[in-house]
Amino acid sequence: MTTENPFGSENGLSIVALDSGAFEYSFPMHTDTRGKLTAGEFQSDIPFAPLRYFIVNEVPTDEVRGEHAHLQCKQFLICVSGSCEVITDNGHAKSLTILDRPNKGLLIPELVWGIQHKYVNGGTLLVFASEHYDTGDYIRSYDGFLSLVT
Amino acid sequence: MTTENPFGSENGLSIVALDSGAFEYSFPMHTDTRGKLTAGEFQSDIPFAPLRYFIVNEVPTDEVRGEHAHLQCKQFLICVSGSCEVITDNGHAKSLTILDRPNKGLLIPELVWGIQHKYVNGGTLLVFASEHYDTGDYIRSYDGFLSLVT
Repeated sequence: MTTENPFGSENGLSIVALDSGAFEYSFPMHTDTRGKLTAGEFQSDIPFAPLRYFIVNEVPTDEVRGEHAHLQCKQFLICVSGSCEVITDNGHAKSLTILDRPNKGLLIPELVWGIQHKYVNGGTLLVFASEHYDTGDYIRSYDGFLSLVT
Repeated sequence: MTTENPFGSENGLSIVALDSGAFEYSFPMHTDTRGKLTAGEFQSDIPFAPLRYFIVNEVPTDEVRGEHAHLQCKQFLICVSGSCEVITDNGHAKSLTILDRPNKGLLIPELVWGIQHKYVNGGTLLVFASEHYDTGDYIRSYDGFLSLVT
């Protein structure tokens, strides 16, 4: 694990490389009497400008979502309300990330398997994707994923 | 007011042009036993790919945020949890939008004044911005704004 920022930002952001190949981000939170604000810049903090977003909510706590990898698409996950857990896996090592605040993010590169579960307290997951929706970019078989990356 | 989609999407999205120059978006919500999902595509549904996002939360209900326009930056607002109200204003007409679900959005073009208030029920506002952060792009004087657009 490292705490350097491989993307060159100097705005107080810290980035930790996980064993799974994913990256945990912790952004500054700006708090004043009018509330809290956290911000991220694409193409610098986050190494792409998204072509798609999606928002997942009202997930039963015992449900598991994700369970796929992408051939090309990079994803950046933020739990904007409540919390959820994400397991990432590059075929060699797995990492667990708890997303529980809007200034924490998780970059899942292409060819990293991801699952999300344990949505609690109104867990609402925001995902930025580097590509438009393309069913052909999904790897949905874990065995097929392993044969590709190992 | 019109309900056509000026950006050519055919995915069930409806877009309403407001008198203020802003556009209200209503995206489909996909619901199954694993929860709810709503998605938007940039450069098609939303007429830009964002270079920045920010998330605002824990705003006291009597606080007012925003109160500026941008020279070039376009913004797309979604209240991902709870609700808030947005007033948009092009100097000729004002419109009120209640953002109260993750599949509703508001496009605020450049040179449209915006304020946000009445954050309730844990209101958490997500904003996509078409440009990187640039203090020089802000118009913070309403009189200056009016002299520019009228």
